[in-house]
Amino acid sequence: MVKKVGVAILGLGVVGGGTYKTLVEHHDFYLKTQKVDITVQLVLDLSKERMDELGVPQECRATSIEEVLANPQVDIVVETIGGIGAAKNFVQAALREGKTVVTSNKELICKYSHELEDMAKRKGCGLYYEASCVGGVPIIRTLLDGLQANRIEKMMGIVNGTTNYILTKMSNGGANYEETLKEAQRLGFAEFDPTNDVEGFDSTYKLSILSSMAFHTKVPYMNIFREGITGLSGEDIAYGKEMGYTLKLLAIGKQSEKGIEARVHPTFIPSSHPLAGVNDSFNAVYLTGDTVEDIMLYGRGAGALPTASAVVSDVIHAATHSDIKYSTFKNKETAERGVKFVADFSSAYYLRLSVEDRAGALAKISGIFAKYGISLVEVVQKGKTNDKEEPKVLLIIITHQTTERAVNHAVAKINETELATVDALIRVEK
Amino acid sequence: MVKKVGVAILGLGVVGGGTYKTLVEHHDFYLKTQKVDITVQLVLDLSKERMDELGVPQECRATSIEEVLANPQVDIVVETIGGIGAAKNFVQAALREGKTVVTSNKELICKYSHELEDMAKRKGCGLYYEASCVGGVPIIRTLLDGLQANRIEKMMGIVNGTTNYILTKMSNGGANYEETLKEAQRLGFAEFDPTNDVEGFDSTYKLSILSSMAFHTKVPYMNIFREGITGLSGEDIAYGKEMGYTLKLLAIGKQSEKGIEARVHPTFIPSSHPLAGVNDSFNAVYLTGDTVEDIMLYGRGAGALPTASAVVSDVIHAATHSDIKYSTFKNKETAERGVKFVADFSSAYYLRLSVEDRAGALAKISGIFAKYGISLVEVVQKGKTNDKEEPKVLLIIITHQTTERAVNHAVAKINETELATVDALIRVEK
Repeated sequence: MVKKVGVAILGLGVVGGGTYKTLVEHHDFYLKTQKVDITVQLVLDLSKERMDELGVPQECRATSIEEVLANPQVDIVVETIGGIGAAKNFVQAALREGKTVVTSNKELICKYSHELEDMAKRKGCGLYYEASCVGGVPIIRTLLDGLQANRIEKMMGIVNGTTNYILTKMSNGGANYEETLKEAQRLGFAEFDPTNDVEGFDSTYKLSILSSMAFHTKVPYMNIFREGITGLSGEDIAYGKEMGYTLKLLAIGKQSEKGIEARVHPTFIPSSHPLAGVNDSFNAVYLTGDTVEDIMLYGRGAGALPTASAVVSDVIHAATHSDIKYSTFKNKETAERGVKFVADFSSAYYLRLSVEDRAGALAKISGIFAKYGISLVEVVQKGKTNDKEEPKVLLIIITHQTTERAVNHAVAKINETELATVDALIRVEK
Repeated sequence: MVKKVGVAILGLGVVGGGTYKTLVEHHDFYLKTQKVDITVQLVLDLSKERMDELGVPQECRATSIEEVLANPQVDIVVETIGGIGAAKNFVQAALREGKTVVTSNKELICKYSHELEDMAKRKGCGLYYEASCVGGVPIIRTLLDGLQANRIEKMMGIVNGTTNYILTKMSNGGANYEETLKEAQRLGFAEFDPTNDVEGFDSTYKLSILSSMAFHTKVPYMNIFREGITGLSGEDIAYGKEMGYTLKLLAIGKQSEKGIEARVHPTFIPSSHPLAGVNDSFNAVYLTGDTVEDIMLYGRGAGALPTASAVVSDVIHAATHSDIKYSTFKNKETAERGVKFVADFSSAYYLRLSVEDRAGALAKISGIFAKYGISLVEVVQKGKTNDKEEPKVLLIIITHQTTERAVNHAVAKINETELATVDALIRVEK
């Protein structure tokens, strides 16, 4: 019993093109292994060149969204345009027509999943977005239908390939941020305007989607603490390495009795941690559940084919399941009330200070940490700064677990002393 | 709309006990997050003590399988007995009654999945076995419903915790196999009779199940090449380490135009490979698909709660899906004919030889390798053997990719020369 399913693809960029190729080349394979006959009925893209390049037949080239939605052969609409302009309008229009939507659009899902899921539910169609997070890694399906026996307590993810590529190069070569970014741009690992990646926005969207699923409640991206990698110095990466830490841009979500904590920032993790070995443009998500304990999913977080793998897996899932089971927030009503977000989170900290080479300076600084209840794990003197007239002592401090507020207070107080300045602050996770 | 589901658990061992605890403790959590009211109706176990220990209420204690199957409140039967004696009879009886079965039994599924799936299909009930492979890691669901867009080309798994624990200790401490096994037994990481684990049978069962799913055709365990870890020496692990390799017991499956290749044996992999960092009793599966490229799933391969996570996820899946979608071999008819299994597989090899300290010996040996078309990547002399009367030269050789047959011929020929003996042979994967 073979099921026939027609697909339309909106947007033939990297992911859309990969999806088109994958569906066309695997047609017979899916027929055989999944008993489903999936054909691309229509493709919508402004670029004729791109259509030619991919060999899209003339009869499959749509000229408007209306043409796509009016076609009764189109059961599933794949949206791979990105952003929240046309993409949002098209997805809403498709759902209104009762077409199932598969999208790779993290910003759209992060910002509008609630209303889109409501629309899908009303119309009895599906809304799938595995490809919106961590490329080919089926992390969303795993959270929904693989780890559902668990209360997820903690999630730590390397969910952005561009920044992981830059940090890996900085860790290996000691080059600085600006140089490494330029190299990444030359090689196509970073965009011309890299803000979305390097400032952590992209990771924030993904953390919002994933932690919402993991914690069974909406985690709005506005509630996520965010710090990018633009301020990092190769110096700190090297010092951390010597002390057994690797620097990664982590998306961290935690749920406890205190509430939900969600944050994206450069983080030192022990170099023996499985996430420390996730290099270059690879991504990974490390989860801790109350039943499964620790688990990690690792793979390509981006790229035409890996992301197409997620899009097409959603298409096959939608085509072979009559159940619509992708509504994330079964407990939406309860969830939207009374969820507490922890702003003053706990962490350990790495700090780099330049300190006047004067008797009593260290005692003064230690005193300030003590005053704010911060105890220190390690204090290492790293020689003198390059400042010729008045060389200063370079000090690396690693603290025990404390709070963001306490550290910020201590840093402000230290800077006030005029004995020392805090030149770098990096959070540390164990 | 809450669905009510009754569960019976057969066998309260490690996994059965973990499953009981997980279901009882998470009852309200599943009600809230999954909208399903799962209650343990009956438990069947010979040990009254174990029932007491877990606090199973009197009215939930069954005394026979007939009692369990006759109970109309029991929708799902969880089998956590293991082996193919009572477990097989009970699972068959449950399916005959039209009860959905969730099992953690790898031997049963490996050997009888075909007939059990046929029974389930005839009766319109489900057969689920996520917990049979790699404990809490949802590898089966991922293969069925996460990577289905892919032709899986290669699978490499560390799927047995006992052997990975032993090999990790041997790699770190340099202790020999016998000592390490004893320590593992003392700590509960190895059974009193460890044959099933250390000889690779357990890995073979799991590889049979996983590669059957990955390659969409039955891969019978009899077709899997198997070599255990009992013959390994700490010496080779140390030499390999120096040369940049880590030793793991890998379950390897490959599919290409030549056919399917499935094998379980100790394997050197580059120490930079993500699998090389999978230590102690952790497990992982590394997959290569034609679309997703490389992906790895990592987690606890055994233990009461991690395995219960898989059992309970199956229970929830069965309870919340009306689709019965667990039949592995949609293309069974085609699959059972014409599948070719590659016996003479290709690999690179690590060889340790003791060679007479005589002119021309190395030339002779090199000549034998050349005769069988085997080219060498590295030849390293490691000093002399301890043999006082007639010390021999210790030689480590790493070959390029060649075939099992060629290497076996070459080894036999070298041993015939009386100039040298091959004392260790370990396959190498890149």
